[in-house]
Amino acid sequence: MRIATDHPRQWLLRSQGVTAPEGFRAAGISAGIKASGKPDLALVFNEGPDYAAAGVFTRNQVTAAPVRWSKQVLTTGRLRAVILNSGGANACTGPGGFQDTHATAEAVAAALSAWGTETGAIEVAVCSTGLIGDRLPMDKLLAGAGEIVHEMAGGLHGGEDAARAIMTTDTVPKQVALHHEVAPDSNWTVGAMAKGAGMMAPALATMLVVLTTDAVADAAALDTALRRAAALTFDRLDIDGATSTNDTVLLLASGASGIAPSQDDLDAAVFAICDDLCAQLQADAEGVTKRVSITVAGARSADDALTAARIIGRDSLVKTALFGSDPNWGRVLAAVGMSPFPLEADRISVSFNGSPVCIDGAGAPGARDVDLSGADIAVLVDLGLGEETATVRTTDLSHAYVEENSAYSS
Amino acid sequence: MRIATDHPRQWLLRSQGVTAPEGFRAAGISAGIKASGKPDLALVFNEGPDYAAAGVFTRNQVTAAPVRWSKQVLTTGRLRAVILNSGGANACTGPGGFQDTHATAEAVAAALSAWGTETGAIEVAVCSTGLIGDRLPMDKLLAGAGEIVHEMAGGLHGGEDAARAIMTTDTVPKQVALHHEVAPDSNWTVGAMAKGAGMMAPALATMLVVLTTDAVADAAALDTALRRAAALTFDRLDIDGATSTNDTVLLLASGASGIAPSQDDLDAAVFAICDDLCAQLQADAEGVTKRVSITVAGARSADDALTAARIIGRDSLVKTALFGSDPNWGRVLAAVGMSPFPLEADRISVSFNGSPVCIDGAGAPGARDVDLSGADIAVLVDLGLGEETATVRTTDLSHAYVEENSAYSS
Repeated sequence: MRIATDHPRQWLLRSQGVTAPEGFRAAGISAGIKASGKPDLALVFNEGPDYAAAGVFTRNQVTAAPVRWSKQVLTTGRLRAVILNSGGANACTGPGGFQDTHATAEAVAAALSAWGTETGAIEVAVCSTGLIGDRLPMDKLLAGAGEIVHEMAGGLHGGEDAARAIMTTDTVPKQVALHHEVAPDSNWTVGAMAKGAGMMAPALATMLVVLTTDAVADAAALDTALRRAAALTFDRLDIDGATSTNDTVLLLASGASGIAPSQDDLDAAVFAICDDLCAQLQADAEGVTKRVSITVAGARSADDALTAARIIGRDSLVKTALFGSDPNWGRVLAAVGMSPFPLEADRISVSFNGSPVCIDGAGAPGARDVDLSGADIAVLVDLGLGEETATVRTTDLSHAYVEENSAYSS
Repeated sequence: MRIATDHPRQWLLRSQGVTAPEGFRAAGISAGIKASGKPDLALVFNEGPDYAAAGVFTRNQVTAAPVRWSKQVLTTGRLRAVILNSGGANACTGPGGFQDTHATAEAVAAALSAWGTETGAIEVAVCSTGLIGDRLPMDKLLAGAGEIVHEMAGGLHGGEDAARAIMTTDTVPKQVALHHEVAPDSNWTVGAMAKGAGMMAPALATMLVVLTTDAVADAAALDTALRRAAALTFDRLDIDGATSTNDTVLLLASGASGIAPSQDDLDAAVFAICDDLCAQLQADAEGVTKRVSITVAGARSADDALTAARIIGRDSLVKTALFGSDPNWGRVLAAVGMSPFPLEADRISVSFNGSPVCIDGAGAPGARDVDLSGADIAVLVDLGLGEETATVRTTDLSHAYVEENSAYSS
């Protein structure tokens, strides 16, 4: 085993995903769960030699059966495989829905064992995404679980197939890999795939994310890295304030590189991957026409800054104004005014894309003429109370968002 | 002075407003504040013999100049007049904006004094509504303040003119009066007008409301009645979660009927007026296509029930589904699951317009086929935890809402 250097050479590639690290295979197939016949079943398989794993889950109190199952199996700190389906969330499906999740894990374990890798159901996490409230078509899912094991590919193809099979209203598959060269011919890598286009909120999203790494790291190190990264990335992506019943982010380590990065290096790599996935999720959010960052500065505490940024990022009147490219800064003031901590209205200043629109609580010259016609809008609100800052990512509220979410059950 | 009986004969009329009670005059004129030339300045004048008054205001920490002014003058518990303008909120306008409000009150007081009723600026409340962030055209406003005093009419005509002059994106004027006959030829009355079509939230709305009564009641009695009524009505009307910088609800009593109702009777009358105005505000909310009531029952406390009902009523995914007449009950479960108090997901039941769609956390037979095509949708969520209940009124999230709030600065 080599110890990673402090300053490895790194490169980030969006053309690669969960099979970029050594020791992982993946597949995506059409199992017939979606009526459209599109790919709907994905498998990520860890070939070892290590099987350490960690996960973070939705904070919603109404949790889907697969979330309850995966939380339970992760108490061991160990996973061999993750099976993911689109076409149904298996949420609000009663005890029968939980039995379906259990049966799915059993079927994957049996198929992997028959394929030559002795696996127990307790080593298989399950993720589901789609409409809440319906039971899954278990005949198709179980048949698919038997079939997908034979489709697993170790190359990049398998990772991309898996990323496509978890899409719902996503328009593009989302994956990324970060390679670290610590010496010639000595690399360690973190790869990942994600789905999620609506229902995103601070407590993640209808966000299914699987990260893989060939680094040597135990479950505690993975858990630390994943929680630190999620708090700064997925937890600060808020598309519409809604929080899914199914949000799951998993990190699996095969140890196949033989390299044990420091906790700092692992933290940095997992953060970089999660941050890039967040940008991809934001850019492909339901109905998005603007990518918006809301930064609140000058707060007394980082918590205050984050709270205020979330309030602005969720405000329907701010979001519709941004959809209309309208520099209506008064709505930002009205939104931040509902912060639950004390403010001084005449100290608040606001800029849009660097142009001041409000200074000390009143309009700046030319504020109504700021050009917001581009796709990226940076809102900066300085509360004038302290030194702390936080940023959330959100989107505008568009006709397309209303259309996607009203025209059919999703 | 007569004491009101316990069971007076009552009748509610939407054809009458602030001039229905004895002792009030009102007017509405076009002062040129709105570029469109539509009516934009209203005056409500109390002829006495009493001048008791009370008010409730926005909870937003960013308050418009007229809110700060009116709060200050109301500390006396006494008002002679209310001047209201549409065409500009006079919010986020700095010290100059506050001076503008003060000058407006001075101009109204001077005009009323010249007209024959000695009045001080401290007896004049000011309300403004419109775009945040711009100074008002004071030349037009001050000229209008001088002119409007001469337009005051005591009949019903003056009240309706005033109700029209405070409209912004409202499509209809909103007024109502409740008459009480306590003996033949012995009546007391509460009348009111309201504006507000967007930006409504628990802490009121861009909601300007003036209630008048000819009952004999002191400022403390009015304050009690108004706070009780507002907590159950305007505070539970939530169109888009946003809260205005300008929300103001005022209640003025002339005592001209000579009748002093009991506190209970006054409370009941003010509640009835506020409740009816809420229904009118909901029905004319920006972009509304569905009038939605969200009732949460079976909560451990009334506060829990109200909190959960607000969370559901603000959820963009619930509101877009209702716009689409889609009985997508899973989104209701996902929303209520974010309640900040402990839930048991498998005890939650939901019905739409009386049809069960979710029983004990799982789908009810026929849930996907419930017809929500009508304009009124009642959502009932039973948490199965206790006996307490609360209801909020909201609307759907429609294309028209996005259009109204993105197409121009408002």
